Amino acid sequence: MAPHTASIPLLPQATAQAALSAQDALVLRLATAARALLDGPAAEEATQNDSTAELHQLCLIVTALWCRVLRYDPATPNWPDRDRFVVPSQAMRPLLRAMLHLSTPEPDATTPLDFGLHPAVEIAPGPAGQGMASAAGMALAEEILAARHGRSLVNHRTWVLARDSDLLTGVALEAAQLAGRFGLNRLAVLVCPAPHTDPADFSDSLARFGASGWSVRRVNARSLPAIMAALAATLRSRKPTLLACLSDGPDPYPPMPAEEEQTGPWSPTARRGASARRSWLRRLTRHRARTQFEREQAGLAPPLLSEDWPRLWRHDLRGNSSQSVALAGLRALQTLRPELAVLAANSGTSGAVHDIPDPHWSCGLQEHGMAGMLGGMALHGGMLACGVAGMITIDRMRPALRMTALMRRKVLYLLTNDGLALSDGGGGWQPVEQLASLRAMPHLAVFRPACAQETFACWQAALLWPEGPALLVLCPHEMPDPGQSTASSETGASGFGSATHGGYVLRGARNRQVTLIASGPEVAVAVSAARLLAEQGVRAAVVSICCWEVFARQTEAYRATVLGDTQPDTPSALRVGIEAASSFGWERWLGANGIFIGMDDFGISAPANAVYERFGITAKAVCGRVMERLGVVATEQGSAHEADLP
Amino acid sequence: MAPHTASIPLLPQATAQAALSAQDALVLRLATAARALLDGPAAEEATQNDSTAELHQLCLIVTALWCRVLRYDPATPNWPDRDRFVVPSQAMRPLLRAMLHLSTPEPDATTPLDFGLHPAVEIAPGPAGQGMASAAGMALAEEILAARHGRSLVNHRTWVLARDSDLLTGVALEAAQLAGRFGLNRLAVLVCPAPHTDPADFSDSLARFGASGWSVRRVNARSLPAIMAALAATLRSRKPTLLACLSDGPDPYPPMPAEEEQTGPWSPTARRGASARRSWLRRLTRHRARTQFEREQAGLAPPLLSEDWPRLWRHDLRGNSSQSVALAGLRALQTLRPELAVLAANSGTSGAVHDIPDPHWSCGLQEHGMAGMLGGMALHGGMLACGVAGMITIDRMRPALRMTALMRRKVLYLLTNDGLALSDGGGGWQPVEQLASLRAMPHLAVFRPACAQETFACWQAALLWPEGPALLVLCPHEMPDPGQSTASSETGASGFGSATHGGYVLRGARNRQVTLIASGPEVAVAVSAARLLAEQGVRAAVVSICCWEVFARQTEAYRATVLGDTQPDTPSALRVGIEAASSFGWERWLGANGIFIGMDDFGISAPANAVYERFGITAKAVCGRVMERLGVVATEQGSAHEADLP
Repeated sequence: MAPHTASIPLLPQATAQAALSAQDALVLRLATAARALLDGPAAEEATQNDSTAELHQLCLIVTALWCRVLRYDPATPNWPDRDRFVVPSQAMRPLLRAMLHLSTPEPDATTPLDFGLHPAVEIAPGPAGQGMASAAGMALAEEILAARHGRSLVNHRTWVLARDSDLLTGVALEAAQLAGRFGLNRLAVLVCPAPHTDPADFSDSLARFGASGWSVRRVNARSLPAIMAALAATLRSRKPTLLACLSDGPDPYPPMPAEEEQTGPWSPTARRGASARRSWLRRLTRHRARTQFEREQAGLAPPLLSEDWPRLWRHDLRGNSSQSVALAGLRALQTLRPELAVLAANSGTSGAVHDIPDPHWSCGLQEHGMAGMLGGMALHGGMLACGVAGMITIDRMRPALRMTALMRRKVLYLLTNDGLALSDGGGGWQPVEQLASLRAMPHLAVFRPACAQETFACWQAALLWPEGPALLVLCPHEMPDPGQSTASSETGASGFGSATHGGYVLRGARNRQVTLIASGPEVAVAVSAARLLAEQGVRAAVVSICCWEVFARQTEAYRATVLGDTQPDTPSALRVGIEAASSFGWERWLGANGIFIGMDDFGISAPANAVYERFGITAKAVCGRVMERLGVVATEQGSAHEADLP
Repeated sequence: MAPHTASIPLLPQATAQAALSAQDALVLRLATAARALLDGPAAEEATQNDSTAELHQLCLIVTALWCRVLRYDPATPNWPDRDRFVVPSQAMRPLLRAMLHLSTPEPDATTPLDFGLHPAVEIAPGPAGQGMASAAGMALAEEILAARHGRSLVNHRTWVLARDSDLLTGVALEAAQLAGRFGLNRLAVLVCPAPHTDPADFSDSLARFGASGWSVRRVNARSLPAIMAALAATLRSRKPTLLACLSDGPDPYPPMPAEEEQTGPWSPTARRGASARRSWLRRLTRHRARTQFEREQAGLAPPLLSEDWPRLWRHDLRGNSSQSVALAGLRALQTLRPELAVLAANSGTSGAVHDIPDPHWSCGLQEHGMAGMLGGMALHGGMLACGVAGMITIDRMRPALRMTALMRRKVLYLLTNDGLALSDGGGGWQPVEQLASLRAMPHLAVFRPACAQETFACWQAALLWPEGPALLVLCPHEMPDPGQSTASSETGASGFGSATHGGYVLRGARNRQVTLIASGPEVAVAVSAARLLAEQGVRAAVVSICCWEVFARQTEAYRATVLGDTQPDTPSALRVGIEAASSFGWERWLGANGIFIGMDDFGISAPANAVYERFGITAKAVCGRVMERLGVVATEQGSAHEADLP
């Protein structure tokens, strides 16, 4: 058998009709075997999805790719420098199954081809187009890592088996623009028109990719010489490549030789992959950054991070808002963990241009594409992916965020410009139900810090969150430090717990009558309300729940102490939730008799103070609601004033 | 002054340099005045958004459009056959303000240019690109209405003042494809490159629109003859038009005549608009379908709908699943209310191809663009917009849905293929947190009917929902009618309330010990569990909450009776929530001591039964959890069996 290298002999067009080389003959025999597998047990899967014709149309080019180009080692399918072969749709899985079968002497037929179960499955299936964005993220990760560690360690490609319908979706078009802008030339998409697709529509699809910085190449997927030429051109391309596989000419598949009907030919993929991995391991052993590389691949933090990070962080603070503090934390973290890669949307950087760390990858208004890429970067591994975007745009990123949570990958999101006053855009489309809708998502942690102190704690907790992605919801307004009033002698009780537990008593009260529970900027409202209530002789504690998910995972005893349920049999203190957002879900902390003060409607177009007034999210209004519920008529002067009387 | 008609004299290119006509001179003087207004009080708004350069660049073409083409009557800005002038971004509002000022002898400077306050504002500002999709929806609405009522009643255009960044977004690219596919030739977008935009990127943007079935036209926005030629071509175009406004040549604005410096010239827009509206009114008076047209414009149902609809509906039932019944309702409604326009995504029609009503507009995989268009159709008025899509794709449509809810427009969504088993795509991405995230959105009502009977009731309640959009979440599986067991003699109590109240007692129990609360397919699980509990001697009522929002708006007494809180001072029955979804928000109905049985994680890739088993959403598991909580050890035989012993 001929030697198997990653390079392909470049066939000039003229030799396309030349006699078959031994390699070509093998590819054709393998394709015949693959096609037989497609018609076999995998057929059922395909028929359900009506993708049989596409699978057949792509069979030869995928076989050629696996046989001659792709770096895949069945012994260690997930070695870091493997080529990524991304199959985002269930419908295209039979081709992956066939390739695995033909690449391995003893194929493992028992492990299902599901993400997380089979190591050769790079991605879980999701909505159309979503996988294209993930693949673009993998290609960007490769690019970033190669720039840091050199091509001797990072030298692979991302191949995507797409469907033509994927190309029409907004998320794919956004990711395509980003891939084109970033020049991700190691990204290649294989696609063919579905049987019912109008050729004019397919051409339009290709034109849109061509106008997004892609090299679009039409390939006759029935001609092996044409396929080899296209693959060779893909390897040389300076742009991401879209290989549009069309069918022209007779069926290229030779009959299967009788002796191979039972065992099948064995593809050179495995041998080439194993040899590539061995020489990569030799290079890694000699590499001067080996320890660092291995740490990053394992997703571990460097030693001393917990000491170095806060020091560096405090050194570079440029403001007191949670947004400014969190971005300072990001800058410091980037210095200490260079595997941190930051993607930023315009909505995230607006009003914070000077706080965004450098370098970062600017993703304009393509938030959905960006979020998909962040997920792909996390899937790629070897880096810590972080996105910066405006809080209000989270709805756009939601489908991609969901896939990241579903695959339990860590992506950090810094969501800036939270809060009630948005000068940019305006018109009353502030975040309202976003917090609730995010808290409902499994495996996702949502942090909403109230002050600089909490921002420190939340950032660190977000990094440690083990289940999946974590969000920091950040406000651009300078925030008073509500912690200053903790040790107030008037209340006779200090705080309890800490922000790293997700919720804690910020300002205690002995024998509290009321527990004010808030997050983010509304914690300051709660602290002021507690002061007003104290003037009225009402003992109120202030609890900050900066992360519901982390708080929910504390012991029941801890939660009860924080929420003021010290004696289970006696009626607990009145609970009041304060958050400039939808009440949905707050019953969890407030119980049946609690009060929620927030927004039962979309915002209005007005400065922040006016919006807070309008929705009654002020210390005075909170105090009034509490006094009303407690059945106490608040005196205008207040008890503190009365004490001054002779 | 020259007569003002909607038609423009078509200028051959050769006469572009000819002497100015009186009309052209007026346009130039108005543009000068508009520019002065942009630099005046409106300037602040623009500077905030960094859009001054774009406003100036578009000033002449917008003035020409208003002065010579646009149908706008300041006396009745919202008459049905007006041209829609859509300004989706706050940044472009100053041009609208200037045009309104110049078109009206006594401009109203007090009413803010906000959606819902000023009748000339067609849309609330939203995320970038969102307004493009809405505008495409308005153009589609015009197309549909013109086909129904003829051009004598419906004969207007939709003009959009976009920013170049809008064109890059996924939602705009999806809507552009749909507009191109539907041939919406009365849609025109005016855009110019922002100062910092790379000309090559702008060209790419135009090419993407060109490849989406648009007529893309570069206009020298400093040359009035070029502008008039481009507007004339737009009126003739058979495709949607993108007018890319570039700047070439000297500043076209003449100095303002001294006598007009105070009052400004007065644009012929108002006179042309008033005259167009008068003749439209004359045609309407004579029109044979006038009553029908006026009813539709007022958004009213035809008389006798409540009688005719169920009759027609029952006649055409093709199955027993909520999905099949709801789609039958849609078909019947389309017959009775021809103003119903249906847009369907592939995700919605998959598995239900034969149930989708005809005609409908097929939107492929462009769910986000489709949802934006539905919102635009509702903004246009005169029709009832309805979207059919897969439940899992609601995350993609969310940003558009939110804008519809924010603007309080009625759009109906039929979300099909809800449930735990998705053969299509598979891989465990069933809906989980979608219900919670939708219920958190203000002004939106989410209906999840359990059976054919409830589907009838929910459909009618959805039509009546007054606050904004309404969703029907539908399951493709045949459903047993749980209502059959209502009058069970064993429990000694019958149901209470009805599905039109959002929640009701489906199966009562005298002195109930347990209330099982469920929605959709899980109501059947609750009914079976109640039977098992009855065998164990436990009295359980079954409550179906098919719409939280409607149920929450019932009287407190009604809700208390349904939930079993008849005596506020005694401990109420144990409440158990059952829903194959995230628990988030359920505390609202379950209280602090309730049990929730649902999904705390994303789904798994398995048939529905296996998923129900895995998450313990079975009658047996529910029964076990209840018995455990009640402190009763369930006997294997059950009490019913014991009674058989001698």
